[in-house]
Amino acid sequence: MYLTQAIKSNAQQQSEAIATRFGKRTQTWRSFTDRVARLAAGLASLGVRRGDRVAILALNSDRYLEYYYGCYWLGAAVVPMNLRWSPAENAYSLNDSGAQTLFVDDAFLKAMPAILAEAKDVKHFVFTGEGETPEGWHRHDQLIAAHEPAEDAGAGGHDLAGIFYTGGTTGFPKGVMLSHLAIWSSGMAMAFNLGCSSRTNYLHAAPMFHLADGAMSNCVTVAGGSHSFIAAFDPAKVLDAIEQHAVTDVLLVPTMVQMLLNAESYSPARLASLQRVIYGASPMPEGVIRRCLTELPEVGFAQAYGQTELAPLATINPPEQHVLDGPNSQRLRSAGRACACVELKIVGDDGQELPRGQVGEVIVRGPNTMTGYWKLPEQTAATLKNGWVHTGDAAWMDDEGYIYIADRLKDMIISGGENVFSAEVESAISKHPAVREVAVVGIPSEQWGESVHAIIVPHADAKVSEQEIIEHSKGLIAHYKCPRSVEFRGEPLPLSGAGKVLKRDLRAPYWEGRERQVN
Amino acid sequence: MYLTQAIKSNAQQQSEAIATRFGKRTQTWRSFTDRVARLAAGLASLGVRRGDRVAILALNSDRYLEYYYGCYWLGAAVVPMNLRWSPAENAYSLNDSGAQTLFVDDAFLKAMPAILAEAKDVKHFVFTGEGETPEGWHRHDQLIAAHEPAEDAGAGGHDLAGIFYTGGTTGFPKGVMLSHLAIWSSGMAMAFNLGCSSRTNYLHAAPMFHLADGAMSNCVTVAGGSHSFIAAFDPAKVLDAIEQHAVTDVLLVPTMVQMLLNAESYSPARLASLQRVIYGASPMPEGVIRRCLTELPEVGFAQAYGQTELAPLATINPPEQHVLDGPNSQRLRSAGRACACVELKIVGDDGQELPRGQVGEVIVRGPNTMTGYWKLPEQTAATLKNGWVHTGDAAWMDDEGYIYIADRLKDMIISGGENVFSAEVESAISKHPAVREVAVVGIPSEQWGESVHAIIVPHADAKVSEQEIIEHSKGLIAHYKCPRSVEFRGEPLPLSGAGKVLKRDLRAPYWEGRERQVN
Repeated sequence: MYLTQAIKSNAQQQSEAIATRFGKRTQTWRSFTDRVARLAAGLASLGVRRGDRVAILALNSDRYLEYYYGCYWLGAAVVPMNLRWSPAENAYSLNDSGAQTLFVDDAFLKAMPAILAEAKDVKHFVFTGEGETPEGWHRHDQLIAAHEPAEDAGAGGHDLAGIFYTGGTTGFPKGVMLSHLAIWSSGMAMAFNLGCSSRTNYLHAAPMFHLADGAMSNCVTVAGGSHSFIAAFDPAKVLDAIEQHAVTDVLLVPTMVQMLLNAESYSPARLASLQRVIYGASPMPEGVIRRCLTELPEVGFAQAYGQTELAPLATINPPEQHVLDGPNSQRLRSAGRACACVELKIVGDDGQELPRGQVGEVIVRGPNTMTGYWKLPEQTAATLKNGWVHTGDAAWMDDEGYIYIADRLKDMIISGGENVFSAEVESAISKHPAVREVAVVGIPSEQWGESVHAIIVPHADAKVSEQEIIEHSKGLIAHYKCPRSVEFRGEPLPLSGAGKVLKRDLRAPYWEGRERQVN
Repeated sequence: MYLTQAIKSNAQQQSEAIATRFGKRTQTWRSFTDRVARLAAGLASLGVRRGDRVAILALNSDRYLEYYYGCYWLGAAVVPMNLRWSPAENAYSLNDSGAQTLFVDDAFLKAMPAILAEAKDVKHFVFTGEGETPEGWHRHDQLIAAHEPAEDAGAGGHDLAGIFYTGGTTGFPKGVMLSHLAIWSSGMAMAFNLGCSSRTNYLHAAPMFHLADGAMSNCVTVAGGSHSFIAAFDPAKVLDAIEQHAVTDVLLVPTMVQMLLNAESYSPARLASLQRVIYGASPMPEGVIRRCLTELPEVGFAQAYGQTELAPLATINPPEQHVLDGPNSQRLRSAGRACACVELKIVGDDGQELPRGQVGEVIVRGPNTMTGYWKLPEQTAATLKNGWVHTGDAAWMDDEGYIYIADRLKDMIISGGENVFSAEVESAISKHPAVREVAVVGIPSEQWGESVHAIIVPHADAKVSEQEIIEHSKGLIAHYKCPRSVEFRGEPLPLSGAGKVLKRDLRAPYWEGRERQVN
């Protein structure tokens, strides 16, 4: 009852308030909670039992939120599938999780034959879209209409709430097992630290399969706020939805923020209702966050840092710490500090806490930590040691507990024996006015082991040379950190489903036939 | 690490901020957390192991808070003893819990021989007071000074955090087992629903052994606020402490609020720093809350309702719902609605949820529910059914989820087949200007089964007759609810350690030799 408690409380305390807004469709909390209880009954009628996995492959919608809470209500585990995956990867997550029931919307019907050719154990299909229901499939709305509300199965605590596959940037996907307690405590901490309330109207613009948005689902629900949706991120549609629904809060990854500011239809006036942008999943280039604060002074920017293994919240950098000038302006570069339910340390290779200011690995524990990786005891033991999740992120901490992410440990470049943090180099390069997107990776070097290589997407009308970028960098950071080579590209950088730049893919051509030492 | 996480985060994020203020003594969060870790090591040196019970019998102080967190740090279970108990009751809680280590301050040294004559298993005594350490006892500060900080044992989740004896108003004390998760989630929900922050400066004026104040301990700590203490409730000392320490928040039971307003040294100007009064444990007579809102318009009044079995929070009625006039003024009589972690229903005798407006029993579930009564499986099964705590409180709910406590089920008077809720009668009588304190109980009646009896303590200079009270009541409530007999007393009504009127004691002389039917 941990996760379903909030929707029941909302139905009890504000039954006629808006729960969801999707296009022209709205649901009150009374109706939403009723539909969730009926959907749970519908799933039970298909034979789904407590602990069974139920997968979904769909764009954002109000029905996606019903799917989440319907599974929690029944005590089944959600398996939200990554929209960017290949059919083989999608089939892998179905086979690995053992999901026998799958929700699919219009957008992914075409992909089904290729996926199902490799995933033969799925028995029940629920069409959660708008078009015609494929033959032999159940229809989301009809499953709801045909069943009386089920009793909440009472799942909670350490019961499995979902398996969230992480992948895209790090080899084969691993299924992160999260309990009701983990997801609930992360949502509670976020609601408390962000100060969400029943006046919060959150726009699901980032993909709902990803826990960055998933955390906001629970945070907003526990606070009694309302949910608006767009099917998929598109800068123009985000602007339209914010205006149309009077959205107060949105979570975006930094690349999305950039695209929003660069959109043709963007103007600060269109964001008048917006009170807060939560950004995360990767660091915001300093040039971008400075532009945000200058152009949108009424909007609070908050960084949320975490990872799926933390359900997903570790730290929050609140709007008060987003200032452009003065002694606290260094906090702009911070990922924030431990949120209300989290214990966080920076440790060295020996696992001992490091003095403030020294870069080491971020480790975290709390009620929000994962139960483990599904069916992967060795990887679980390597990441979850003595209750602490080892994040694989390198960071340092200041005297007030704010952490500064130096890099993913595996994206750190070791050049001539010196550690170079790609994020720091990217931040410097991003300040050049011609630079629209930038990624920095380590490529093989006879002389240095690895050398610093920058891949840049310039603004459409900008002219800039390799030498100019290198000189610009030398004005901002130590010489050994500056790129030794620069590559310009016309098309956007490749992104994971969560909107992170796929550095593995960028590095791959350079490392063909070689083994890269990963820290 | 659930409960200790907050003090570690405070030491990490605001090491030099004030954690505790007691008289002239202050501790920073760095120092407080260090002392807690050393106290845990000191307790370990006495042989205290994870899961062992450690009792305390002491007035409020900063050391009391160290005791709480020291036990949590070590994974030991706290047993905070009731200050009002007889030696026999105190001995019972020591014997029943099996505590072998006991903290005692100056105030209770005299009581020790009588207690220890019946509790012979206590092996280690820690003197937590200011005077001379008794021979053979350990001294709180020396246990701290003599030991290096221990590693946090990492207790959390369903690990036992404490055994809290409830009693005073209901027969023999029962030990309520609360987990780390239960106490933590109640504190988190309270911090979220009250909007506490690092600017909160809370005064421990209610006794710290009781969970009403205990909940605030965790709520304030998780929010990063600071703690001030007075040794025991005294209206003049509360006023002094609020002025001296610039207190922002205080929790008081209604009788204490009344005493504060009636204190000679009271003036609204002395409460200038005060932002919020949280009251609970029993309903506030309407006359008193009206006086509060009129005289202290800058102070937010919030009611917290719950019980030890809920660690202890069930509902909060926020300051916004405390208005004197207009359609929402009925909310003044509400105990509020389910807090962020709680699922709450009003059920009939058959356990089914009742329609809004009908009086039934309040039942609650959530991560905050007790594990059970210590060594009392039958009582546990009677109270904790299918995960729901049956509170024994009768209440109804309005259309926005606000509940209105009608009575303790066992204080409800059945007179001539009609249910009379003593709280409603008390509220009516309290509006008479001569009435300082009032309690209404059922006494035996040949004709009616029970008849309504009022016991009144008038203001010092007031003159009032039985007939006048009965007539006053008839002007406000139905005739069958009005007292049939009224008794006047010169001394205050007897209170439990938690400040609740001991109705059992008031009823006892009337029921001698008879059995009262309890609902």
